[in-house]
Amino acid sequence: MDLLVTYDVDTTSAEGRRRLRRVAKLCEGHGLRVQQSVFEIVADDKSLLELLDQLNATIDADTDNIRIYRLPARAFDDVQTLGIAQTQPHRQDLVL
Amino acid sequence: MDLLVTYDVDTTSAEGRRRLRRVAKLCEGHGLRVQQSVFEIVADDKSLLELLDQLNATIDADTDNIRIYRLPARAFDDVQTLGIAQTQPHRQDLVL
Repeated sequence: MDLLVTYDVDTTSAEGRRRLRRVAKLCEGHGLRVQQSVFEIVADDKSLLELLDQLNATIDADTDNIRIYRLPARAFDDVQTLGIAQTQPHRQDLVL
Repeated sequence: MDLLVTYDVDTTSAEGRRRLRRVAKLCEGHGLRVQQSVFEIVADDKSLLELLDQLNATIDADTDNIRIYRLPARAFDDVQTLGIAQTQPHRQDLVL
């Protein structure tokens, strides 16, 4: 499934800034960064559960905010972009 | 249609910070803020075109980055949230 993960992590403390880096690193392990706090992720059920577990173990549930949207097929290709935003190649083209 | 608008605006200059505030204000006119740089927007074709025109006229296309994802029906209700993130009531329940 195709997911969009967006987050706000409270960075008013050194601990918060550490969490922010950790959240970004976790998301980098699962998908492509398209903005400062936005990742496009292709995942199956197992890797989504793994990511959710990792994120839950990382964030401060009283201050941080993570949203995970399930997108329709090809939404990554159909995203409308303005400015320097670009579509990302999540799947290599097949050469037969 | 249901849209998710995410943005990164270069805030290294006072002019950039002005653009950031303007982008947020434009999005506020069309939907609900769910994170610092993420808005959930319900729009018809006309208001989407209007928003795109306004955003294009506001951003610096060489530094800023806006992405607009079209979401499936009810995606705003089905969003998976961690921490303090909450689902947002875009449409009032009908009382018959």
